[in-house]
Amino acid sequence: MIPVLGIDPGLAHAGWGIILHDGMRSRYVAHGVIKTDSKSPMTDRLLCLYEELGRVIKEYNPVTAGIETLYFAKNVSSAMPVAEARGALILCMAKHHLTVGEYTPLQIKQAVVGTGRADKHQVQSMVALLLKLKDVPRPDHAADALAAALCHAHSGGLS
Amino acid sequence: MIPVLGIDPGLAHAGWGIILHDGMRSRYVAHGVIKTDSKSPMTDRLLCLYEELGRVIKEYNPVTAGIETLYFAKNVSSAMPVAEARGALILCMAKHHLTVGEYTPLQIKQAVVGTGRADKHQVQSMVALLLKLKDVPRPDHAADALAAALCHAHSGGLS
Repeated sequence: MIPVLGIDPGLAHAGWGIILHDGMRSRYVAHGVIKTDSKSPMTDRLLCLYEELGRVIKEYNPVTAGIETLYFAKNVSSAMPVAEARGALILCMAKHHLTVGEYTPLQIKQAVVGTGRADKHQVQSMVALLLKLKDVPRPDHAADALAAALCHAHSGGLS
Repeated sequence: MIPVLGIDPGLAHAGWGIILHDGMRSRYVAHGVIKTDSKSPMTDRLLCLYEELGRVIKEYNPVTAGIETLYFAKNVSSAMPVAEARGALILCMAKHHLTVGEYTPLQIKQAVVGTGRADKHQVQSMVALLLKLKDVPRPDHAADALAAALCHAHSGGLS
């Protein structure tokens, strides 16, 4: 089984999740959230995301990753810092030689629940069910990151 | 005089410029553009920006930098990849311990030309005049990067 990383990108909170996948089955390994201080300069916040994700990658050795794309219908200005954070996270994965698949929220819902109309709670319940977890992973960012990892694994992103 | 970096962020083309500044006068040092291949995966493109900017920083040893903020009134989807590139560029500067100042296009125009109503060509002509260059630096991205460096130097970003 190979370790697969999932990322729910964000500047204040970036979720990560690690699963093992063998082409058929997935097994839970770990999840967490990287937090950055909103009072810190952008340089420090991006560096924090980069260094912390680097530690996760060194600990679990994933070779490939799935990351959620951003969807902002209305507020462009609030989307920009999240996109910059996403750039730093993707760069970190590139530096560690991971292949990276990008998935829309719709694609992740379809892969995990089977329908793009699923709500957030349905996705998180399915993540717990598929990974045989007693409880839904907390916080939401980490559950969403595990969903991105499952989507990447089930979408043939490993081949 | 201390070396100051200026950045005009972009994914396909990121402009950079280096000036020397002593609190009063500015002197031209170098400029250029980092290009990434639109056919390459996002991981490779962000890595290219990061590595190439790292080479520029190692060669000229700037301690501080000015970078233009993004302004996208209409097309959010085209802004996202540029914001991701900006994240990778800011991260590179953070990794090399540069302090980074962020300036809107309006602030850069005001700092370089003296009015926010200046057009692109006026800004570039003033860059050439202030830095005693015979010709306007080419391409536009590099001229805009030198403008960002001048704005940073003149805005007290060095103190």
